[in-house]
Amino acid sequence: MKILRYSSNGEAHYGIARDGGKFERLAGSPLENLEPSGHFDDETSVVVLAPFHRPRVFGLGYNYRAHSKEVGKPSPTLPVLFMKPSTTVIGPEEPIVYPADGENVHFEGELVVIIGKEARNVSEADALEYVLGYTCGNDVSDRVLQRRESEFGCLLVGKGYDTFAPIGPVVETELDPANLRLVTRVNGEVRQDGNTSALVYDVPALIAYLSKYMTLLPGDHIMTGTPAGVGPIKPGDVIEVEIEGIGVLRNHVVAA
Amino acid sequence: MKILRYSSNGEAHYGIARDGGKFERLAGSPLENLEPSGHFDDETSVVVLAPFHRPRVFGLGYNYRAHSKEVGKPSPTLPVLFMKPSTTVIGPEEPIVYPADGENVHFEGELVVIIGKEARNVSEADALEYVLGYTCGNDVSDRVLQRRESEFGCLLVGKGYDTFAPIGPVVETELDPANLRLVTRVNGEVRQDGNTSALVYDVPALIAYLSKYMTLLPGDHIMTGTPAGVGPIKPGDVIEVEIEGIGVLRNHVVAA
Repeated sequence: MKILRYSSNGEAHYGIARDGGKFERLAGSPLENLEPSGHFDDETSVVVLAPFHRPRVFGLGYNYRAHSKEVGKPSPTLPVLFMKPSTTVIGPEEPIVYPADGENVHFEGELVVIIGKEARNVSEADALEYVLGYTCGNDVSDRVLQRRESEFGCLLVGKGYDTFAPIGPVVETELDPANLRLVTRVNGEVRQDGNTSALVYDVPALIAYLSKYMTLLPGDHIMTGTPAGVGPIKPGDVIEVEIEGIGVLRNHVVAA
Repeated sequence: MKILRYSSNGEAHYGIARDGGKFERLAGSPLENLEPSGHFDDETSVVVLAPFHRPRVFGLGYNYRAHSKEVGKPSPTLPVLFMKPSTTVIGPEEPIVYPADGENVHFEGELVVIIGKEARNVSEADALEYVLGYTCGNDVSDRVLQRRESEFGCLLVGKGYDTFAPIGPVVETELDPANLRLVTRVNGEVRQDGNTSALVYDVPALIAYLSKYMTLLPGDHIMTGTPAGVGPIKPGDVIEVEIEGIGVLRNHVVAA
């Protein structure tokens, strides 16, 4: 099932993608239940939004060995975690705003896990029971700022500009996250072609690890890290992140 | 004016501290307006909560030179920022849960800024207009995890355990944050005795810096960093953070 959020006549609704280009509205939030309302919208009459409004977003660094290698980092001995502020999140087709003083801003195509149920001290064996579904994400990163911050052992603004987390277009609820092809294209050219089977810490391991320390909440996003092939973007570029079984997240880049 | 949030007969209310041990309920959220409702509660009949439920929390590292020196770090060349997950936040008198495998967990008494209005690209000169008020905070930190994460340039779980951000007891709206004495006591013994006049990046600078990158939202918390004197806590300890003009934030430590 593909869950999405969309705006129709200026109002936001959750819905389920149905055959024939129709979205059926949900009665409430998919974090409560998936009861359909019986009201349908035509996909051509709506604007698809990020799946959730201002979620908590956890990000992973160096979670594919081939990416750690390309940026000259040792593969980590623990999950390298940070948060992206909720204000980074934008939906499909919304513009990524290139900072006025940006020098080296990169795309990072990623599988995103959406938590469906409160989770604390969850085992790897049980972890996937706490997942609502999966979507595509782009962990846009200002490398200059990121490096300056990481020298002092922290990371926020380098990953934290408004618009630096495109997410969407849909949350697929029936998917095995262990073996999904992930392709990122810039202006139609393939730049990343990875597979979630190469994750250093896979989805169950990440949920178990995070929930050892903190209560994961319904709607939380875990951006699972990016495969090899990252590179710079510039105003005018169109970035597409495509994940098998989910779809294509497309955003263009505009100057601030 | 001192704003607080409290529970009365199981229901949470925002209120204003009045003379004679009375709290006057607000009609709504203090992030909308400060209209009083005319309904009073006696302070002995309520439980004071963290000022806001699950806020965004930005934290600062190495923002007092004397603290950087005591932990052997160079004073940073930029604000060293991270986020504490919203699930770290607890109120006054709520227990800090000492992790089962914690080895070296420290208190950090801090001034906390509460944002009152959406802020983006705000100048230092205008920054304080976006502040609702100030409160006390304790940026509890697992040093072993913090160091392991910071080696890889990130920081989350070392600062991110549930209960690792006691906040409160009140938000004082009429206060100059430039010169406030901050004292932290462990079991009644003074361990930190600093003053916000020694902040490397002061409150206007922090708001201007953050809002250059991201939209600050009403209710956002900025924990401004800790002065010298940090040290370990253990189950059974009582930690008090007292800031001039605000009050005392007191929490005890319990084993997981």
